[in-house]
Amino acid sequence: MGWGTNEKAVITVLAHRNATQRKQISQAYEELYKEDLLKRLESELSGDFEKAVYRWIFDPVEREAILANVAVKKGSEDYQVIVEIACVNSPAELLAMKQAYQARFKRSLEEDVASSTSGDLRKLLVALVSSYRYDGQEINTKLASSEAKILHDAIVNKAFSHDEIIRILGTRSKVQLNATFNCYKDEYSTSITKVLSGDPAKDEFLSVLRSAIRCFTSPQKYFERVLRNALNKPGTDEDGLTRVIVTRAEKDLKEIKEIYHKRNNVAIEHAVAKETSGDYKSFLLALIGN
Amino acid sequence: MGWGTNEKAVITVLAHRNATQRKQISQAYEELYKEDLLKRLESELSGDFEKAVYRWIFDPVEREAILANVAVKKGSEDYQVIVEIACVNSPAELLAMKQAYQARFKRSLEEDVASSTSGDLRKLLVALVSSYRYDGQEINTKLASSEAKILHDAIVNKAFSHDEIIRILGTRSKVQLNATFNCYKDEYSTSITKVLSGDPAKDEFLSVLRSAIRCFTSPQKYFERVLRNALNKPGTDEDGLTRVIVTRAEKDLKEIKEIYHKRNNVAIEHAVAKETSGDYKSFLLALIGN
Repeated sequence: MGWGTNEKAVITVLAHRNATQRKQISQAYEELYKEDLLKRLESELSGDFEKAVYRWIFDPVEREAILANVAVKKGSEDYQVIVEIACVNSPAELLAMKQAYQARFKRSLEEDVASSTSGDLRKLLVALVSSYRYDGQEINTKLASSEAKILHDAIVNKAFSHDEIIRILGTRSKVQLNATFNCYKDEYSTSITKVLSGDPAKDEFLSVLRSAIRCFTSPQKYFERVLRNALNKPGTDEDGLTRVIVTRAEKDLKEIKEIYHKRNNVAIEHAVAKETSGDYKSFLLALIGN
Repeated sequence: MGWGTNEKAVITVLAHRNATQRKQISQAYEELYKEDLLKRLESELSGDFEKAVYRWIFDPVEREAILANVAVKKGSEDYQVIVEIACVNSPAELLAMKQAYQARFKRSLEEDVASSTSGDLRKLLVALVSSYRYDGQEINTKLASSEAKILHDAIVNKAFSHDEIIRILGTRSKVQLNATFNCYKDEYSTSITKVLSGDPAKDEFLSVLRSAIRCFTSPQKYFERVLRNALNKPGTDEDGLTRVIVTRAEKDLKEIKEIYHKRNNVAIEHAVAKETSGDYKSFLLALIGN
């Protein structure tokens, strides 16, 4: 599929199609060209525009399986993507993504994450992707209070990779974790992400831990932060920018946009228009505007 | 439901009903007596006969969720049950059991196992129950050989709880693990379970590790061993005996019986008849004979 001179048509057609329609398009493509769309993916992708279109065309579950696989292969810099997928999704969504991952790559996400990482980072990441959390709304407030204390004690001792931190973040349900983080704030007068702050470049584990907590507590605020960092980075982080816009367009991008606007005093459309150009810019703006 | 004088009728009716029929019976019981069968379970169960009947009446997935929960609460002595459920079941069966566990207990099996264990044992058990393994038949022989070496190096250094052992057993697919254990045997002229042998009473971690490997490589041989140990134990281990017969009756008990007969030169029926009595004996024999 050479994009040729027809980019405008591609933008118009694809950016305004929902997941089911896109699936039909990619099936039609395969029948027409006798070629799996994925075969052209990743290694062959050159421009940001092509990459964004390819990402967009997959249905959400397949897309996340591909994003997770790219992140595993890239390693270090992209662990944030794995955390996002593991912690923003509901347990059922994460499971569906892991099933798509296995069908596509003939391996489990767990084994790929485990064999490409080591040490404390491995323990945390493998726990986050493996666990099939309880998804009910029950909260045990006594447990929240006692586990807030366990987290606090470990953090005070700078034992950030303490087994108990990994156990709690790795196994408790999301509503329970949120209750625990609220207890933390009430008891110790500071949020757990604040006390875990540090330089991401210097301490990868701490950075992954913080991202996980942010994804659990407020995915929209977390994504606003990713967008902001991507746009503010000298030269722009196109992969991060594309990922958030493409993956959230049909979910909570509207809310993320509002948070962005409030936080930065500028509409996301303007920031994106300023930092991108050409077809890539038009495509992202079409997705944002949907 | 007082068993009264009608045990013979209970045995005849229940032991010869399949899972669907048993489900209908337990629903009829609930409608008739306005009482959940589970409400009478566990704490109120006195005799081995009642316990076996109660275990039998549940459908397999529910039964395993209950067995796992009882094992978590009992702790140490029953970790073998958790290993069995995690490693004998297919990934899809394990998932179904975990869903039943959550529906029933409003918590995940992962968090219950994690919060009731610690140290290396926790790492191993949580990995075994959490992982959603790949279930395909692809084998990577190069990987099997390199991971057999990793296992060997760790074992030679007596680093049984080495992160790499937990990573490999915790994440690889069953066919891949079996290929790895075969490589181990070929390369180092001894089976991995042999080099891991030791006193279960003295080293719980090693004992759990061995059980996991046995469940992965040959569930039927593993269950024969559990039956043999249960029957040979002074006073008999009724819980183990009941568990294997009830849970395997509709699966692979026939094969387990054959292995038992060959290994012990006595039919399992005779051994069970010798070590048990009364209605409990009749019920087990009815299940074995099915």
